[in-house]
Amino acid sequence: MGEAKQVKLYGFWLSPYCTLVHLALKLKGVAYEYVEEDLTNKSATLLQLNPVHQKVPVLVVDGKPVAESRVILEYIDETWAEPSFLPSDPYSRARVRFWVDFFYQRMVPPSYAIIRSQGEELEKATKEFIEVLRILEKGIMEDFPRKKGPFIHGSSPGLLDIIVGAGNPGTKAIEEVADVKLFNEEMTPQLYSYVHAFLSLDLVKNTVVPYDQVLEAIKERRMMALSSSKE
Amino acid sequence: MGEAKQVKLYGFWLSPYCTLVHLALKLKGVAYEYVEEDLTNKSATLLQLNPVHQKVPVLVVDGKPVAESRVILEYIDETWAEPSFLPSDPYSRARVRFWVDFFYQRMVPPSYAIIRSQGEELEKATKEFIEVLRILEKGIMEDFPRKKGPFIHGSSPGLLDIIVGAGNPGTKAIEEVADVKLFNEEMTPQLYSYVHAFLSLDLVKNTVVPYDQVLEAIKERRMMALSSSKE
Repeated sequence: MGEAKQVKLYGFWLSPYCTLVHLALKLKGVAYEYVEEDLTNKSATLLQLNPVHQKVPVLVVDGKPVAESRVILEYIDETWAEPSFLPSDPYSRARVRFWVDFFYQRMVPPSYAIIRSQGEELEKATKEFIEVLRILEKGIMEDFPRKKGPFIHGSSPGLLDIIVGAGNPGTKAIEEVADVKLFNEEMTPQLYSYVHAFLSLDLVKNTVVPYDQVLEAIKERRMMALSSSKE
Repeated sequence: MGEAKQVKLYGFWLSPYCTLVHLALKLKGVAYEYVEEDLTNKSATLLQLNPVHQKVPVLVVDGKPVAESRVILEYIDETWAEPSFLPSDPYSRARVRFWVDFFYQRMVPPSYAIIRSQGEELEKATKEFIEVLRILEKGIMEDFPRKKGPFIHGSSPGLLDIIVGAGNPGTKAIEEVADVKLFNEEMTPQLYSYVHAFLSLDLVKNTVVPYDQVLEAIKERRMMALSSSKE
C-alpha cells in the first residue's frame, strides 16, 4: 500500500452516496477524517474542492480532491488494491460497471418518486421500482452465478454489493413511510440474500446510518413533498 | 494482445455514442464487423443482446455483449492495452472519469435543447452549452496541463479526446441549423486546439460521419421538433 496517505471525506450524514464512500474506505481499511457539511450553507472549502457540482461526497487524498461517488469508488479501488472491488477480467468488470450504471440510472428515480407521491402516481413508481429490481436481480444472477460466497462478487463484497446494499436502509424507510412493499425475500430472494449478507457485516452495520434516523428524515421529506404538492 | 477475438459492433450510423465505439476500436487497431440497426424496427438479435436498454451501441466480443458507450469504452481499453486511453496513475484516471461523466451529464442535454428550440429557450440553451464548455476547458486545463503533445491526454489520444472530439461534427451541424455560435477558436481556444488535433487524424476523418450527412439529419430533426412543438 506504500506510504499512508492523508485522507479526508466531506459528506452529509444522510446522503447514500456518502455512505458508499464511507463503506468503500472502511472495507479497504483506510483511516480517514470525516467532515460533515451543512448543505444549506456549504463551506468555502467544499465549493473550492468541488466547484463544478458543489456537492458531497468529495474525497481528498493528500490534498487532491475527487468528486462524484462512482468516480470516487473506482478511485478508491485503484488506490488501495486489497480487497479488490472489481473482478480481474475485463468482461466481468464491464458487467459490474453496466449494473452500477443501471442502478444509478434506473433505481434512484423511482425511489425519489415514491417518497413524494400518493395514489396512482405512487402505485406507478412502486411498480417501476419493483420491476427495475427484478431486472437487476435477473441480470446479476446471469452475469455472476453464485459460486464462492454470500456476496454478489463472491466471497468478499465488491462494487455491486456496496451500491446495492448501501441503499437498503433507505428503501426500508421508504416502504414504511409510503406504506408499500418494495424489497423482501419473496419478491427478489437472491438479491435479498446478497443484501442481507452485506448488511450483516459488522463493519457495514457500524457504518450505515441508523435506521430510526433514516426513517425520521424520509418521513419529514415525504411530508414536505406532499404538503408542497398540495399548494 | 493474445488470440484475435471475434468482434462485432451493433450500431446506428448517426449515433455519436456509436461513433465513440468505432473510434475506440480503430485507435486500438481492432478488426471488427459492423452491423447497422434500424432503430424503428430493432432486430431480435439487438433485443436479445441488450434486453435491458434495447439500445445501440452494443459491442459483442467472442459472443459476449457489452452495452452503454462509457462501459464499452473502458472495456475496450482494458481488453486491448495499447495505446492506453487512460493515464496510469489513479488520480489522473479519476480526473478523466470525472470529466467524462461531466460531459455526458452536462453537455448532452443543452445540445438536444438547442436542436428543438427557438427564441428565448434557444438562447438559454445556447448560453448553457457555452458555459458548460468553458467549465470543461478550464477543468481540463487545470487537470491536464499540456505537456507532451497535441491531445488532451498528451501525445496520443485518450478517452477525453475521443469523447470531446467525436461530438464535434454534431456541434458544427447544430450551429449551422440553429444559427448559433457554440464552439470556435475564440471562445474556447485550448479545447478547440485539442479537438482540431484529434479530428485531423486520418483515422478519425475516415470514421466520423461525413458532415453533410450529419447536417441533413440534424436539420430534419430540428424541423420535426419545431413543427411538433407548434401543435
